[in-house]
Amino acid sequence: MNALHRVVIIGAGFGGLAAAKSLAHSAVEVTLVDQRNYHTFQPLLYEVATGGLDPADVAYPVRAIVGRAPNIRFRLGSVTGVDWQERTICFAGTNVKHDATSEGCADDIPFDSLIVASGVVVNFFNVPGADTFALPLYTVDDARYLRDHILLRIEEADGESAHFLDGTLNFIVVGGGPTGVEVSGAIVELLDKSMERDGFRFERSMARVVMIDSLEHVLNPFKRSAQRYAEKTLRGRSVEVMLGRMVSKISPTEVELEDGMIIPTRTVIWAGGVTARGTIASELGSPSIPSGRLLVDSNLSVTGYEGVYAVGDAAVIPTALGSNQVCPQLAQVAIQSGRHAASQIIAHIGGGTLKPFRYRDKGIMATIGRRAAIAQLRGGLVLQGTLGWAAWFGLHLVYLVGFRNRVTVFVNWSWRYLNWTSGPRIIVGDHDGLDSSVANDSLATAGQQLT
Amino acid sequence: MNALHRVVIIGAGFGGLAAAKSLAHSAVEVTLVDQRNYHTFQPLLYEVATGGLDPADVAYPVRAIVGRAPNIRFRLGSVTGVDWQERTICFAGTNVKHDATSEGCADDIPFDSLIVASGVVVNFFNVPGADTFALPLYTVDDARYLRDHILLRIEEADGESAHFLDGTLNFIVVGGGPTGVEVSGAIVELLDKSMERDGFRFERSMARVVMIDSLEHVLNPFKRSAQRYAEKTLRGRSVEVMLGRMVSKISPTEVELEDGMIIPTRTVIWAGGVTARGTIASELGSPSIPSGRLLVDSNLSVTGYEGVYAVGDAAVIPTALGSNQVCPQLAQVAIQSGRHAASQIIAHIGGGTLKPFRYRDKGIMATIGRRAAIAQLRGGLVLQGTLGWAAWFGLHLVYLVGFRNRVTVFVNWSWRYLNWTSGPRIIVGDHDGLDSSVANDSLATAGQQLT
Repeated sequence: MNALHRVVIIGAGFGGLAAAKSLAHSAVEVTLVDQRNYHTFQPLLYEVATGGLDPADVAYPVRAIVGRAPNIRFRLGSVTGVDWQERTICFAGTNVKHDATSEGCADDIPFDSLIVASGVVVNFFNVPGADTFALPLYTVDDARYLRDHILLRIEEADGESAHFLDGTLNFIVVGGGPTGVEVSGAIVELLDKSMERDGFRFERSMARVVMIDSLEHVLNPFKRSAQRYAEKTLRGRSVEVMLGRMVSKISPTEVELEDGMIIPTRTVIWAGGVTARGTIASELGSPSIPSGRLLVDSNLSVTGYEGVYAVGDAAVIPTALGSNQVCPQLAQVAIQSGRHAASQIIAHIGGGTLKPFRYRDKGIMATIGRRAAIAQLRGGLVLQGTLGWAAWFGLHLVYLVGFRNRVTVFVNWSWRYLNWTSGPRIIVGDHDGLDSSVANDSLATAGQQLT
Repeated sequence: MNALHRVVIIGAGFGGLAAAKSLAHSAVEVTLVDQRNYHTFQPLLYEVATGGLDPADVAYPVRAIVGRAPNIRFRLGSVTGVDWQERTICFAGTNVKHDATSEGCADDIPFDSLIVASGVVVNFFNVPGADTFALPLYTVDDARYLRDHILLRIEEADGESAHFLDGTLNFIVVGGGPTGVEVSGAIVELLDKSMERDGFRFERSMARVVMIDSLEHVLNPFKRSAQRYAEKTLRGRSVEVMLGRMVSKISPTEVELEDGMIIPTRTVIWAGGVTARGTIASELGSPSIPSGRLLVDSNLSVTGYEGVYAVGDAAVIPTALGSNQVCPQLAQVAIQSGRHAASQIIAHIGGGTLKPFRYRDKGIMATIGRRAAIAQLRGGLVLQGTLGWAAWFGLHLVYLVGFRNRVTVFVNWSWRYLNWTSGPRIIVGDHDGLDSSVANDSLATAGQQLT
């Protein structure tokens, strides 16, 4: 029936999507599986979390990217297992709850080649209370929830002077990597601009932004001078930077450090690290590092599993053949490795030999906020301040998927930097303190309670 | 302490917001209360529901509108009662759940004048099953939920051929007013364009859009010729228009009509009517019509309650002094009546006399979709087709709040009409079949289940 080589790609992040796009219009039949119907531009999630961008600005429908390629089929749902004998994945679609027979696998998808691009999930490192009370920032849902949460705390503090003292306005960021630095800087801007324009009735000085990291410096992969610039700029913008300190416990009302310091807060943002999804590595019987990411050969194939590749954050990838260095967890690595895995499959079908992956370092970037970013280029040159910010701004616009997203992000950002009157600072979700039943019904109730 | 006249406005919809803006920088102290921190541009909610616009495109932060007026204070929360002796409203902020004492009123807000602009809520007219299984389209939350729901049904049908038959692709719209017509037309466009560009693997003809109304014509307030145009255009675009028929029952798997017809479906969109929030009218002891909307004097004051005004959908407003006609439930009526109530308060403070409200009819509009809309102007002139659509498009852009929204809506729409590759067709919420626990954890589970 079907003579075409069948490729299944798990995950439509940077890695999986790059692989799928590389295979579009080739003589292979591709099935791309993801639990969401959109690709997430993760580097800008912190902007969504702080009311600078809309969720839709950083999310792009997968079907809009690959839907017109006749050889790619997108399936919305989860992978619940792999049958290595039959070479099939077991797929559970969105309708799986409506099926009477949830035993066994209702929907097997066969593959000749498999690309694991399932990414990573947040890692709370077993800090007590973190998985329950800390707020991660890794998905669009996370970011939207965090935006609503932060805005609700500010509204609350405005209403009740008592809340000045109980930590309602204390925002704690755990982690001093790029995400921690970016979200800290953005919360400060949100507070500054909101105070100025939004008619809040409390003192800006009542609100604190505290960034905590166990290392002695921020932005670990950057050069020392860039780290110092970031730290100084954050402090200059009133972020309390606490380095060399560990969080030992998180509760709904406070965060505790290992040295005994207690900070009252209702908002602990977790930018503390990631770990591989599930335990695919150990189940594969393949070597993996403690974080669960897959160890791959220099050509990206998982040892002992013919035709199985791992790319992006899900894999630990040597920077080049014979190198002892591994690639950092960056979008660029995911994109390049996704493309490479696709090319390996095409080479394999054509009877060619597999080639080693070689990472082309294009540099790293992080932003602290308005006119303050760091771009560390491959040669070691560091751009910072306004110039760094311009480079960061331009590059992120270029890499956003789709014309519409580029335009709306440009408009949102430009307007925000010029004027700040119209960021999407709206609270739309179902939240503690403003659940939908209250939102929908309480005026109705109000009427009935009138006396 | 406070010598200024205190005005409380309940609701930041078209009416309440117009009143607040009119009172900005006047010698009164205004408190504006709403359960959401944003104003909703309701005429375009159907676009959000069908993946054409983002939620943030039709939602504008209230503080961004009135936050810079020093005499206006915004409070996020609900009104839970009114004390007419003390002339205070009882306010419950977002932090109300954290208060130990929920008995009594924690937060009284005193008023000298009160403007009730609390709008309306959806009315299911006691159709069995409607309040549980029908999907309303009246708030941003409704629209976002509906978008996710529709997109999920299409994804499901794509995965399973069995779903062609069970109504997964049957979309039923109850109500043939502007909302019903607009959402029906937009779903057809979503289906047509999605089929074309998004790589779905089922026949477009398997999907049905059915619009049902008990009246014998669509768009009740319009002229007969405009109604005929709308009906013909909908049918021409493959909407099944069922007129003079009543829905008698709604279940999770089907909708039943009074004549016995049963249509299998999992999506019943309720565009069937609205009713006033709660029973403020009867509690006021004021006359009201059966829908619970407040009867007001020609100067918008609620009879028997000095200094209490009702505006917009919450009130039944005579079109002019001595007129037997009442104003339609339109944004224009809300805006004009909100402004008028504000001017009455200013006049009252200055010792002037109250003036009767007079509605200035600017015409009515409805759109069926791409290049097909109706604009019925005041003189009776009707623009339809491309010209009507251009008028509708321009006017809606002008009336959107804020530069950013105008630009992003313009970009989203233009791009959609030119190309349709990048509408925000993303599924972001927590839904049956794709709840967040599944979305976050199932690949993790997947790994553990690998055998």
